Order: sequence, then C-alpha cells, then structure tokens
Amino acid sequence: MAAHSIARAGLVGGGVIGAGWAARMLLNGIDVAIFDPDPEIERKVQTVLAAARRAWDKLVPGALPAQGHLRLASSVEDAVADADFVQESLPEREDLKIAILARIDAATRPDVVIGSSTSGLLPTRLQSGMAHPERLVVGHPFNPVYLLPLVEICGGAQTSTQTRDRAAAFYSAIGMHPLHVRKEIDGFIADRLLEALWREALWLVNDGVATTEEIDDAIRFGAGLRWSFMGTFLIYRMAGGEAGMRHFLAQFGPALKLPWTKLEAPELTQELIDAVAAQSDDQAGDMTIRALERQRDDCLIAVLSGLRGQDYGAGQTLASYARRLMEQAPAPLASSIDEGRPLALHATDVAPEWIDYNGHMTEHRYLQVFGDTTDALLRHIGVDAAYLAQAGSWFTVETHIRHLGETHAGDRLVAATQILGADAKRAHVFHSLFRGSDGQLVATAEQMLLHVSKDTGRAGPATGVPAARMAELATAQADLPVPDGAGRRISLG
Amino acid sequence: MAAHSIARAGLVGGGVIGAGWAARMLLNGIDVAIFDPDPEIERKVQTVLAAARRAWDKLVPGALPAQGHLRLASSVEDAVADADFVQESLPEREDLKIAILARIDAATRPDVVIGSSTSGLLPTRLQSGMAHPERLVVGHPFNPVYLLPLVEICGGAQTSTQTRDRAAAFYSAIGMHPLHVRKEIDGFIADRLLEALWREALWLVNDGVATTEEIDDAIRFGAGLRWSFMGTFLIYRMAGGEAGMRHFLAQFGPALKLPWTKLEAPELTQELIDAVAAQSDDQAGDMTIRALERQRDDCLIAVLSGLRGQDYGAGQTLASYARRLMEQAPAPLASSIDEGRPLALHATDVAPEWIDYNGHMTEHRYLQVFGDTTDALLRHIGVDAAYLAQAGSWFTVETHIRHLGETHAGDRLVAATQILGADAKRAHVFHSLFRGSDGQLVATAEQMLLHVSKDTGRAGPATGVPAARMAELATAQADLPVPDGAGRRISLG
Repeated sequence: MAAHSIARAGLVGGGVIGAGWAARMLLNGIDVAIFDPDPEIERKVQTVLAAARRAWDKLVPGALPAQGHLRLASSVEDAVADADFVQESLPEREDLKIAILARIDAATRPDVVIGSSTSGLLPTRLQSGMAHPERLVVGHPFNPVYLLPLVEICGGAQTSTQTRDRAAAFYSAIGMHPLHVRKEIDGFIADRLLEALWREALWLVNDGVATTEEIDDAIRFGAGLRWSFMGTFLIYRMAGGEAGMRHFLAQFGPALKLPWTKLEAPELTQELIDAVAAQSDDQAGDMTIRALERQRDDCLIAVLSGLRGQDYGAGQTLASYARRLMEQAPAPLASSIDEGRPLALHATDVAPEWIDYNGHMTEHRYLQVFGDTTDALLRHIGVDAAYLAQAGSWFTVETHIRHLGETHAGDRLVAATQILGADAKRAHVFHSLFRGSDGQLVATAEQMLLHVSKDTGRAGPATGVPAARMAELATAQADLPVPDGAGRRISLG
Repeated sequence: MAAHSIARAGLVGGGVIGAGWAARMLLNGIDVAIFDPDPEIERKVQTVLAAARRAWDKLVPGALPAQGHLRLASSVEDAVADADFVQESLPEREDLKIAILARIDAATRPDVVIGSSTSGLLPTRLQSGMAHPERLVVGHPFNPVYLLPLVEICGGAQTSTQTRDRAAAFYSAIGMHPLHVRKEIDGFIADRLLEALWREALWLVNDGVATTEEIDDAIRFGAGLRWSFMGTFLIYRMAGGEAGMRHFLAQFGPALKLPWTKLEAPELTQELIDAVAAQSDDQAGDMTIRALERQRDDCLIAVLSGLRGQDYGAGQTLASYARRLMEQAPAPLASSIDEGRPLALHATDVAPEWIDYNGHMTEHRYLQVFGDTTDALLRHIGVDAAYLAQAGSWFTVETHIRHLGETHAGDRLVAATQILGADAKRAHVFHSLFRGSDGQLVATAEQMLLHVSKDTGRAGPATGVPAARMAELATAQADLPVPDGAGRRISLG
C-alpha cells in the first residue's frame, strides 16, 4: 500500500521527540512498538497522538490510511526485534546513546536501518559500538515531529550510502523533507544555526538587555515570518535590491566587523564572496529579484492571513489594525439597515486553510459562512444567551446550496439575507454570498429553520422579542421578489 | 481620520528600506516627500508601492484610506522642511548618518520626531551632532517594511521618553508592532539574533559544510515555521515537555558546552536559570504546556495551509504528500461492493472540535462528511492524481441537505451513496448518513456534480475510466427506488 516497505517501526525513547515519531508513523498506517521506562509512557504517547490526529484531520481530512497499531514494548530489545525500521530518541548523552545503539544493533535484523534523532552528536561516534555500523544514520527531526517536515540525514564514517538513501525515502514517504548533511559536523546544519541564535539570546538575558518575551517578539513579529518559507541567504539576496547578493555583501559586509553579536564572523575574503554569490545564483535559479519578491510577498500574505485567523502574534497585529481601519472607514452597510431590503449582516475573508487541493474554497466552508450568517440573523433579532438558556433557538433542518463561482484565499465575502417567510415555529431564509472585490454572486443558500423549545427539546413556537422581530422582518420583506434559485429541486432535468 | 496626527512624512534615503517606508506610509494616507540622489528613485519607489498596494489589497480589501501623495524632494532639507515625522534610511555608515541627521535636525521643526532605520548603530552616537538630540530615536524596521510588523524602538542617552512614545504610537497607527529596546546595545535585539545566525551560516559556507540553499532549507522546513508566531524561548519551554523550562534547561544545558556553533554560550549559572525560568513563566502567563502546544499546532496548521496554497517550501512538501495519500488510498471499504446497491464508501468518527455550543455536530461539518463521501466516490471510479492533472474532475454545483437527527462527539458515522443518474458531464448522487451505533439516519445530502475539464476550466464531458465507471454505476443503480427526500424543494408549504 505505502511507497515504502516499512510495516513495523521500533522506537526507543518516548519523550517529546519519540512520541512525536510514534504519532507520525501511526498516522501513516505503520505499526509502532515503543520502549521507554517512564511509567507514564502510554498516556504521553496517546496525548501526542491525539494532537497529531487533530492536526492532520484538519490538513488532509479523510486522506490518512487506517491508523497503525501501538504496542508498548517491555525492553529495548522487545521494541526492535520485529521492526522494519528503528528510530532512537534518547537524551543527548553520547555514552548512553552508544551503549543503547549497540544493544539495538544486536537485537535487530541486520538489513534494518537505524535512525538516531540526535540533535548534534556525531554519527561516527554513535556507531562505534555497533556490529553493523553501516546501517546507523542520523535522522534529526524538529518538534513537533508530527507537523514539521524537516529531517536532517547525516551519516558517520561507516554509514553506507544505501542506508542514507533508504532513510531519506522512508522519511519522505511519511510526509517529511529530508536534508542531506554532506559533511559530518557537530550540530549538523540546523542546530548550528539555532544554537548560535539561542546562545546569543541567553547572553541577552544574562546581560539584562531583554527578557525572554522581548527576545521572542523580536523574532516572531519580524524575521521569523520570512523564515517560515525562505532562509537568510535568499532573503538577503532581495535586501541587496535589484543588484542582488554581491551588492548585499558589499553593503553589509562591513557590519560583519561590528559588535552586533558575540559571534565573530569569518573573514569576508574574495573567495567567500564568490562562493556565496555563486551559490546564491544557483539557488535563485531563473527567478529574478522581482519574482522572488513577489513569491516572498505572496507567502507572507498567506502566513499573515493564517495567523490572523488564529488572532495570534503578527496575526493579532494585523487583525487589530484591520479593525481600526474599518472603524475609521465610513460607516458600512449595517448602521442604518433598511429592513425592507435584504440584510447585510455578515462578511468574512476566505482563510488559507479553507482552500482545497484544487485551489478553491472547500464546499463545506461555504456552509460555514452561511451558518455564521444565520447566526448573525438570530443575533440581529435578539437571540442572546438569555434567550438560548430559557426559550430555545432556531435550528437548520434543511439547506439548499448553489455554487455559482469560485473563491480564493483572501477574498472578501459579503452575505445578504432575505426572509422568504416565517410562521410561529419556522423561518424560510435565503442567503446570497457575494465577492466583495467585484460584487460577483458566488453562492446561495436557502434554509428552513425550525424553532426548538428549550424546555421540551422539540419543535415549539418562538417567544418574546425574537418571535416578534422575526415576524416583523417576514412582513417587511414579504413583497420583495423571490430571488433567482429559490425553491429549486435538484434534477438532471 | 487617522489615530495619529502625522499628515506629512519626510523620508531621507530611498533604498529597499526607505522605499518600503514610503509605501507603508502612503497606503496609510500619509503624504510623503522623499530624497535620494539615485536618479532611478521614482521608478524604485513606485515599484515597491505597487507591490505593497497589491499585498494590502489582499489583506484588507477595500479598507485602506485614500492613498497619500508622493513627492520627490530635491534635497535632504527639502524632504524634511514640512514634515510631521522624519524617517532616515541611509546606508549603515555611522559618519554619514551623523552628518545627515545633523542636517535633518537643522531643517525640521523642533517638535518633530526623527526616526532612524539603522539596523544596529547606537542612537547615542547618531544624535551626537544634533541641536535637538532628544527627538532622535531608532525605529528599526524589517524588509519588506510594508508587510512585516516589527519595528524596534531604541533611544540614545539624550532621547526623551516622549519621543519614544510618540514614535511607537505612530508606528502602531500604521499597522506595526513596536518593540521597546530598553537597554541601548549594538545591533539592538533582533539583529543580534539574526547576525549570530547569519555569521554561523557564513562559517558553514566558508568551511564547505553546506551551500546557501542547504542552509536556507535547514531553516524554512523546520524551525522557521515555528518562528513565524513563537520565539525560541516559548518553543523550548514546550520542548521541555510537561515539566517546562527548567526541565528543558536541565536537559539541554549541557549541550551549551558542545561545539554546536562557534559562539560560546554564557555560563548557565543558577542565577541565569532562575532568570530564564521566571521570565518564561511570566511570558506564558496562565497558558499550560498543553494549551501552548495547541496554540502552536493551530498556528502551524494555519501557516502550512497558507504555504500549501502557494505550493512553496513546506507548503510544497505538504501538497505532494497529500497527493500521494490520495493516490495510495485503497479503494475504500470497497473490497466486495455490490454496485447494484447503495455504496458504502466512507465512514468517520465525529471529532470533538466538530461540536458547537449546543453540544451537537455543527451543520457545516455534515457537509464536510458528505464532501469526503463524494471524494471517496470519485476515487472509487478511478479519479486519481493523473486524471486530476490531465482530464479534470467532478465539482459540486448544488447540494440539498436534510437534518434528521443529532450526533455527538465520538459517534461513528457511515455514509451510503446512491447514484440517481448521470450523463456525460453530470452526476446526480444521494448520500445517506447513518449513525453506526444504532443505524439511525441522521442526515441526507442530494448533490449535482458537474465535470469540469482541465484544459478549458469549463464544464466538459468526463473521459476514460472514470467516465465509463460513472456510467456503469448509474446503469447498475437505475432500478433502485428513489430514496425518501430526493428531489425536495424547501417550502413553508
């Protein structure tokens, strides 16, 4: 079934990283045996698995294979004896890893690849106690392992090319992005960069320059947004303007001598300048600075829009800025509503996560927007927390949706609601959804709402202000023309 | 109109940063006068302004005020004489900045704040030639200035508190996130972190460990995704698992002595541990590790979904993984399907996050399940990645949902699909959704699917295996009774 031949994985170590591996593999349909002496291991793995399941149900709804089987092993040997792939995620102690890897090696079929999650210990050292050292390779993931794609692949002096390739193929098959570290070095590539930043950050706290929160903010409101899709070299190529990387190095080269970090820079020799510029040219390929800038901006728009939906970090800055702009803008639609016309009660932006693999808004998100529109109508007629708690509310019993156009991430959607009729228990409503930028009608939803009484849990008449307001609205709109598409039945005709 | 009193800004320096400031201010309705001796200045600013306009039209469609007026000034003095706020964005040469800031100071009203865009030069030095040094403050932005919210505010020895506050208020009003750098230091906060990472990256190229592209990939597929919304301290707090920051420092403290970067770490004294842990507690506030992890995952989902829409970086990894999952998905439950009966192609459990404030599954989640059922039908008749890429697919144009029962978290839902009819371009299907535990029918969805051809983007006949299989199914099910509720129209009746 899968693109790899791994049916059973053996995991040794079940901390944050080991449990993350377990979750990623189980979700990919792989049976997992895991050993960790922690008595809480099962609860911890199940907690991470639940988080992973929740995340992937949002990312690829319905597409995951049947979940693999999780088994708690009784020993290191028990975890790996049967495995087609082994992943070790023990604490970062070289002596401990060497000893346990030797035991794993002795208990596992010799053709099985053994990956180590070490963040920076050298594989040449880690494989030193193994009888089959050629099958040990570093596969260094990032937390949360079940969501972040990066995995660094680094072999030691005795690691075979086949081992590296098989590990990379397996990690790819379970949704990751393998990065081959060609030269064995402490910390590999990613953690050398992370560690430099982390140590500088600790100095800032140590020297009383900034707090942990200020330091975090210095990243997440600025450069961190870019780093989610482009690294420093490509970003700095653009900072050089139309003249690119050489211009950047000429402009900011002298800053390498300034005390802007406690880390000394290498000498910016002509040789280093030539290497960086040539590699940067290769990396950019045929993308001009202008094309790169557009890609950068589109990614930033996507990331900021996504975070805006979370109302978090830079997304919160954007959301409050947008609210201020709206408040300052001339009073929109709602302030003086003419109830004899269709009502403008709800508007929203298409979030990036509403987009499906075809690049359009997924069909059920239309119903989400229509549902929010119905909620706005109910609030408009006075259904509040007290009414919900004491009287009841209207619930949808029937919905007829027509799709008339496509919408894309970032599109503004504006709904208009017409009341086609109402009686004591029921309301017949028709929502039209327009794209804000060009006014195009993209979808309609006709709904029958049924009032359910709180005390009986069954259909029953609305009461109080909401009952009166719903009736008023129905009367005020009784003479409006029936909208195109109302009362349709589905038929091949 | 605006929350600030800045009607006219004077900008000195029109490189990537200066032009970015011009764009951000113009979009916020501020008139801008800019001086730069570059004869191409107008074209460069207009190019950046067009990019900024395009970005903000996507982020806050229709909400921006009328654009400010752009004027090309003939000299430094001409740019700032009239200004309510001045921003200097010259190259990073201290002597040049001191000299020009003195000229700006002499030509500007004494109550006007002067911001410097320097990435790391000390404001105490920059203000040394000014007659009114109290109004000089660093306002350090990040490229692209028109999109990234961060601006570091740093005063020199003579800068007044009022200047800092006024600068922060102004930058906030134009959509930015001011970060006060409380202790004057070379490189401020952000660039000390960026510069440490950058110098380590240059060492990696210098020492032949990795190329610029490999180094960029080591960030953008991993830690960079997290940094778009959380900084290193909060991220590492979670890496400590349920025991938090102190556990993380105990676990990874020893790695500070390892040669994982060329930067030496500060001594991890008890005092430093206490400071980091206490500040981290303050920063996390009342959010538990579990709540932080959920926030992290939701933000990662939003960021990954956004980048998937761009098919770039980690979004590309996700998109190709999702495509592979679809290709590998087995012909579902299907093994021995009787095609003359309604088809059981999809089943799912009701997830906790599908429940609304009434305790029932939210209405749009029903359509999500029905949409997944239609996807399962399409896979069943042979719509795979190749067909999607070359021929097209069926899309929903109309849906009629009836709600007949309630469902709760954990309920198993099983769908049955009947083909009511099909022609070359259309398929008329009827899904029934049953609760697995008691077989109760909880909802139905009648849908009209329209085949859209890949090459034209318009309705067109299906082809190949899927066309044949759809026709076969329609024939095999032609004599089944029409299900109750099919062909309904919504009416108060």
